[in-house]
Amino acid sequence: MIKSRAAVAWGAGQPLTIEEVSVQPPKAGEVLVRIVASGVCHTDAFTLSGDDPEGIFPSILGHEGGGVVEEIGEGVTSVAVGDHVIPLYTPECGQCKFCLSGKTNLCQKIRTTQGQGLMPDGTTRFSLHGNEIFHYMGTSTFSEYTVLPEIALAKINKQAPLKEVCLLGCGVTTGMGAVVNAANVKPGDTVAIFGLGGIGLSVVIGAVMAGAQRIIAVDINADKFELATKLGATDCINPQEYGDPIQDVIVDLTDGGVDYSFECIGNVHTMRSALECCHKGWGESVIIGVAGAGQEISTRPFQLVTGRVWRGTAFGGVKGRSQLPGYVEDYLAGKFRLDDFITHTMGLKDINHAFELMHEGKSIRSVIHFDK
Amino acid sequence: MIKSRAAVAWGAGQPLTIEEVSVQPPKAGEVLVRIVASGVCHTDAFTLSGDDPEGIFPSILGHEGGGVVEEIGEGVTSVAVGDHVIPLYTPECGQCKFCLSGKTNLCQKIRTTQGQGLMPDGTTRFSLHGNEIFHYMGTSTFSEYTVLPEIALAKINKQAPLKEVCLLGCGVTTGMGAVVNAANVKPGDTVAIFGLGGIGLSVVIGAVMAGAQRIIAVDINADKFELATKLGATDCINPQEYGDPIQDVIVDLTDGGVDYSFECIGNVHTMRSALECCHKGWGESVIIGVAGAGQEISTRPFQLVTGRVWRGTAFGGVKGRSQLPGYVEDYLAGKFRLDDFITHTMGLKDINHAFELMHEGKSIRSVIHFDK
Repeated sequence: MIKSRAAVAWGAGQPLTIEEVSVQPPKAGEVLVRIVASGVCHTDAFTLSGDDPEGIFPSILGHEGGGVVEEIGEGVTSVAVGDHVIPLYTPECGQCKFCLSGKTNLCQKIRTTQGQGLMPDGTTRFSLHGNEIFHYMGTSTFSEYTVLPEIALAKINKQAPLKEVCLLGCGVTTGMGAVVNAANVKPGDTVAIFGLGGIGLSVVIGAVMAGAQRIIAVDINADKFELATKLGATDCINPQEYGDPIQDVIVDLTDGGVDYSFECIGNVHTMRSALECCHKGWGESVIIGVAGAGQEISTRPFQLVTGRVWRGTAFGGVKGRSQLPGYVEDYLAGKFRLDDFITHTMGLKDINHAFELMHEGKSIRSVIHFDK
Repeated sequence: MIKSRAAVAWGAGQPLTIEEVSVQPPKAGEVLVRIVASGVCHTDAFTLSGDDPEGIFPSILGHEGGGVVEEIGEGVTSVAVGDHVIPLYTPECGQCKFCLSGKTNLCQKIRTTQGQGLMPDGTTRFSLHGNEIFHYMGTSTFSEYTVLPEIALAKINKQAPLKEVCLLGCGVTTGMGAVVNAANVKPGDTVAIFGLGGIGLSVVIGAVMAGAQRIIAVDINADKFELATKLGATDCINPQEYGDPIQDVIVDLTDGGVDYSFECIGNVHTMRSALECCHKGWGESVIIGVAGAGQEISTRPFQLVTGRVWRGTAFGGVKGRSQLPGYVEDYLAGKFRLDDFITHTMGLKDINHAFELMHEGKSIRSVIHFDK
């Protein structure tokens, strides 16, 4: 057992506290990872708010990390001590019906226990003063040391700076992946992106890389438009400046609607707008944002019968172990940048400030550096 | 001007009356067609019920016909007098943005006037005692003589019996086309079909032709199961026999859900069930049925984020002039049968009986023979 600095979430709406938790060694098929850096993502805030139906407390949040393998459990073969890894909240066992389907990245091997805040054997590796602390999304990257199943680790190039590529553990991959996996944006296409947080901006980057001709960025916070434009958005729209529904505005602006739209907020009303701004006959809308418990999307079925398609994606449809290392290589090759996303860095002790900055719309990503 | 026997719809819920209406000759780009036979489809009943937001009265309903070209207007080149044709409520101009997109069959060339019950020049060709009678779906096949735009006629092989292939003007093409155009059913797939009317049964046929391994037919009228089974359904399910939601029943039955589902009723609650019985990660649901005015579909967005896809289709995604003649050839080649669908035939004077049979669930299709 080792001791680890960790930010513990005690309950909905409560601030995290920094504790020295106990971490049990990795069991068979598990790996102990030292986290070097972790982004603070809206999904962490969503769970902390109490809106997440799967939220469990007390737990250690965080799911956008980068780290180094410290110790491997029995039978672990795909990573070794010293390897650099990105934790995967969507694992890839390579053996379940889902992995073998060739149609989805949603490996279900450890879905049940992960949803319960537990390791695959049904127990937790974290405790404080003898009391159990739950895992979160199978990753818990707000702890300097965390234990993950081997199937939930992407081994990446050691040349990649962990303090930047940790963002590939969630937001940036989710946005970029959605453009090519869930959608199939082609050169010349028109796209609309609702919500210009880390995911929305990553969709902008992905759309530019895919050759989209017109990239319409939508947000009610006009402060986001400068970076969106820098990254390649051709139009920035604030729905609050229009009297008509934003879908009507976009349909007018684009002679009938967009080829693809992306909802990156998690608001069910925006999801409807994103669908309905799609072009009749072929427009497709991709839901990326996660809505609160019990909330529902709705539209007239005529929207679909006349050729629009409504779909969604998790982690951008990217298979973590087989495809994420390629995203890291693309980053190293200069195909996209990550520094634009990192608006703040801080030590673990200041993590509540990261949540405040996010709530106030002042950050794209705050990245926790465990060496600070 | 010629006289024509026609069934006139006077208003929501009123019986049709047989009248001798006046039909103006075809104008430039138009064609006078003598209808030989016409199916009576649920969409005709839907409009007659008053639920169709586009319903206009007085009008001549009917959109599933087969006929012979009697006279062509100025400039018409693609059909000649004596040609056998199937009227198309989804025309194909070959020149509009939609036709040229290669992504949809929803030609918009005459959409506006068609929705107003008018010919493209904004007038009607039908009248009775000097009063205008409106067109319906651009086809009005419940009149022995009807006028259509040239772009709304599929020229077909004269060997094909019009009293059977008239069904390719709507229901059968819609169902079979949805399987290959909206969905992409592959050998070995599992599908579920909600509603076993003409369209649902056509989906069964299409699924068999596509090589689906398991075909689950769902209806609350068990009388439909015999024909569904004959056509190739492997499982027939009556939701009223289960306490659980039918989507849960199907998910259990199929080890996680179906690869494709088809809603062939027009009920927004069934549309939700059809989506939610799809397999996590890849299942796709196709809405074919047309819901009443103002009705909305809804679901939790999590259904889509976890990989399900919601789409729809009109006329099975089939391009009428370029693709429908091939369906007629396939029929002539014996690739599928139409006689199973035709449960009743009758003369125009008995058309109200055809609607009664449909309401009572006693017919798949009644076909009006104008020579009776």
